[in-house]
Amino acid sequence: MIQNDIFFADQQLELEEVEAGKLTRKIRARGGKLMMVEVFFKPGAIGYEHEHPHEQLCYCLAGEFVFTVGSEAKTLVAGDSVYVPASTLHGATCINEGRLLDIFTPQREDFIKS
Amino acid sequence: MIQNDIFFADQQLELEEVEAGKLTRKIRARGGKLMMVEVFFKPGAIGYEHEHPHEQLCYCLAGEFVFTVGSEAKTLVAGDSVYVPASTLHGATCINEGRLLDIFTPQREDFIKS
Repeated sequence: MIQNDIFFADQQLELEEVEAGKLTRKIRARGGKLMMVEVFFKPGAIGYEHEHPHEQLCYCLAGEFVFTVGSEAKTLVAGDSVYVPASTLHGATCINEGRLLDIFTPQREDFIKS
Repeated sequence: MIQNDIFFADQQLELEEVEAGKLTRKIRARGGKLMMVEVFFKPGAIGYEHEHPHEQLCYCLAGEFVFTVGSEAKTLVAGDSVYVPASTLHGATCINEGRLLDIFTPQREDFIKS
């Protein structure tokens, strides 16, 4: 759990399979109260609705998604972003292959391999 | 200062000039303890070394940069990311035109127009 890294080169980070053939992710820079995770979606892949006590930002890096927060759904394309309050249901469905960058505070300790 | 927005469409956000002909930025999703800011750099543009009590993540969206944290400097290209601890000197010099995505906790209230 202890890490004092500053620089996180893309090439040195593990690509984790979340759902075979559909969803992979890389945990990117993290430290203190912040963590960044990039999620790679194939068309039709779903980040199922869920909630957590962490606040979250999401930035659409590429592709097209329908993103739901609470009862509101919007289409996201590259450059669009979202704020997800703590303990609020949210999810994403991939329309065209793409990538989302999720930022959490505090860190998602459940994502970190012991 | 009060805002309860969830979705931040790229097209609806103001592009602010930071340094004429060199640096522009968009404040993207923000809320609670999180704020996301995209900075657009022309070659040779410099984000001068500075520090603040906020913790920060930085993700290189495009281009090439030399990024300095404390006494350490690294080249960043797309996909590379950085964690900047609170109250730590950091800065960026653009080598090839590009974009950095900065995330702060708490929000940079000094960036918000009253």
